[in-house]
Amino acid sequence: MTIADRWLLPDGVEELLPKDAAKVEHLRRELLDLYQSWGYELVIPPLMEYTESLLVGLGSDIDLLTFRVTDQLTGRMMGLRADITPQAARIDAHSLGRDGVTRLCYAGSVLHTRPKAPLASRSPIQLGAELYGDSSTDSDLEIISLMLQTLTVAGARNLTLDLGHVGIYESVVSALDEATEQRYFSILQRKAAAELDSLLAELPLDDKIKQAMAGLAELHGNDDVLDRGRDLLKAYPRAIAAIEALDQLAGEVRERFPGVALYFDLAELRGYHYHTGAVFSALSSDCDRALASGGRYDDIGRVFGRARPATGFSIDLKALLALLPDCEEGAAILAPNSKDAALWQKVQSLRAAGEQVIFALPGDTQVSACDRELVFKDGDWHLVSR
Amino acid sequence: MTIADRWLLPDGVEELLPKDAAKVEHLRRELLDLYQSWGYELVIPPLMEYTESLLVGLGSDIDLLTFRVTDQLTGRMMGLRADITPQAARIDAHSLGRDGVTRLCYAGSVLHTRPKAPLASRSPIQLGAELYGDSSTDSDLEIISLMLQTLTVAGARNLTLDLGHVGIYESVVSALDEATEQRYFSILQRKAAAELDSLLAELPLDDKIKQAMAGLAELHGNDDVLDRGRDLLKAYPRAIAAIEALDQLAGEVRERFPGVALYFDLAELRGYHYHTGAVFSALSSDCDRALASGGRYDDIGRVFGRARPATGFSIDLKALLALLPDCEEGAAILAPNSKDAALWQKVQSLRAAGEQVIFALPGDTQVSACDRELVFKDGDWHLVSR
Repeated sequence: MTIADRWLLPDGVEELLPKDAAKVEHLRRELLDLYQSWGYELVIPPLMEYTESLLVGLGSDIDLLTFRVTDQLTGRMMGLRADITPQAARIDAHSLGRDGVTRLCYAGSVLHTRPKAPLASRSPIQLGAELYGDSSTDSDLEIISLMLQTLTVAGARNLTLDLGHVGIYESVVSALDEATEQRYFSILQRKAAAELDSLLAELPLDDKIKQAMAGLAELHGNDDVLDRGRDLLKAYPRAIAAIEALDQLAGEVRERFPGVALYFDLAELRGYHYHTGAVFSALSSDCDRALASGGRYDDIGRVFGRARPATGFSIDLKALLALLPDCEEGAAILAPNSKDAALWQKVQSLRAAGEQVIFALPGDTQVSACDRELVFKDGDWHLVSR
Repeated sequence: MTIADRWLLPDGVEELLPKDAAKVEHLRRELLDLYQSWGYELVIPPLMEYTESLLVGLGSDIDLLTFRVTDQLTGRMMGLRADITPQAARIDAHSLGRDGVTRLCYAGSVLHTRPKAPLASRSPIQLGAELYGDSSTDSDLEIISLMLQTLTVAGARNLTLDLGHVGIYESVVSALDEATEQRYFSILQRKAAAELDSLLAELPLDDKIKQAMAGLAELHGNDDVLDRGRDLLKAYPRAIAAIEALDQLAGEVRERFPGVALYFDLAELRGYHYHTGAVFSALSSDCDRALASGGRYDDIGRVFGRARPATGFSIDLKALLALLPDCEEGAAILAPNSKDAALWQKVQSLRAAGEQVIFALPGDTQVSACDRELVFKDGDWHLVSR
């Protein structure tokens, strides 16, 4: 291995140098403070857990994204978290075990075996907020509002909120056998229209069901989608209830965030194996990919002994980096390399008052970029311009 | 696997629930702000890297502590960092590549295959500061000062600073063959006096060398250690230079931190394979283990193409948790579950002003512990006591 190779980081694994690190740290604090002001309590789940608790009930997407290592103390398999949401659900269901509403937030690194999307990071810094204990759309509204507020704080412009509801798909496929359902699922995810035609042609199903299956693939776009959905799916009460819930949510979001565009995708299946209700993501004109996403995932805590309503969202701080302005460079003070006790006292009090004070060390060949310096004059240390 | 097992975390892998998480987050910010005020720039290295860059030049201790996973994109071996210091050194040597003095700090999780000490965490939250580009003891003094300041901010009382210097041991063993050196090293680390006697009895060495080897094992304690060292090791110029450097450092630390006790251990070999000069750690009467440790590790950047003087220290935030007072619980405001637009505006402006405002959701069976609430009266929303 040559020296040139040694510093190469794996693809999708990034380091943040001072300028970017300052931006990420600044936003991290702003967002955790925001979540705190909404009543969300910070938790810090561990980077790794036994795979049985980390991966349970989440479907194969997250399973394939998760690195595994052997616990040398027990020989059991541990996973490096690829998502913090299930950890928060475990904390709500088991570690806290409260009744009623619990609001949690978190910030931490996750690792993915492969990028989730082309060019995505394999080491995102995930921040998120989760609301447990209430199954009403009021909670979805709170989470969506906090998600939009998050992106506003991060400086994202021209936001679009994507809304969907897995109950619509579930209702439509309720009459299908498992193999057919899986083919249809794969076709919808890929929006493969020609394949859908041939699937429907070979299926021995009622025409009305085929009509619903074909129509669902087209149910995305602006406001008229909801009415088209009501018309197409009137034989599916669960789908109609889901559409009504989306309609209500959309109205409430519009009132709170008049500048945010709405887009409906009633066949949205992101995280289908773990979401159970409304699903949402937010896009900005500044970025090709969704900047935040979330949804309802009731009852995930059942495997830990307590089924709880749950809704939440998360973001990747690294993906937001490009939106952030540079932090203002603080003006620093240079102190000479002297061991004088009075200088030390002066420097310490300036630092305590919020100033950045840098000692000029012998190895400092370029004198630091400071706009002021401490000089000894008339028996005392004084701050003067440089 | 039963439900009861599913939530068990692996030994030494902890989650922090809201009360502890708030304490850790508070201290994390205080310390990063402190480092910033001393001129240390934050960097965020990744959780994993190729083992070739992560483990190079660090000796077998860190190697055994490091979890490995295969990179599915390249088939190469990656390591989960067990220490952030080498990553910071790589960033200084390669990514930044500046001349002169560079000060870096970091905060992040690391993982250990086994606890480093009995009852230690396998998932510490490491915070640290590193100073590159100056080989003088002035840099060691700055790092030691910042380490002591760190523990003072964290609330540690009755601090003791342990000081050693690997140059002393190196000087004494310079005449030994490798196999003998390794036996002696192991004996010193374990302070195995009887074994040392039998090693010395069987060695065909000059009596003066044996005297130095035997005496070094005893060179720990208070101030008289330095004079005893000068006397014992007068034939070893490098050891004498190291003792003089420690003497100078000790005097300067005493002046800055008169309340901190000093303890010398001239046979201190912690991190010997990577340290190259003064080594130091800090203990508190509140805790059995060292709360912070560090030392000089010049030239570690050579494998990345640039040998640079380096000194630094790090702490584990989780280990400091027990010292921290609980954060003050902020007084929160309860808002009724109403979609009224004026209420939303009022709530948002209160949150922006730093208040915590919590909506009473339908699932909230226990009304939140708020000391004030928003009520509608005379056509407007008012804040009243509860």
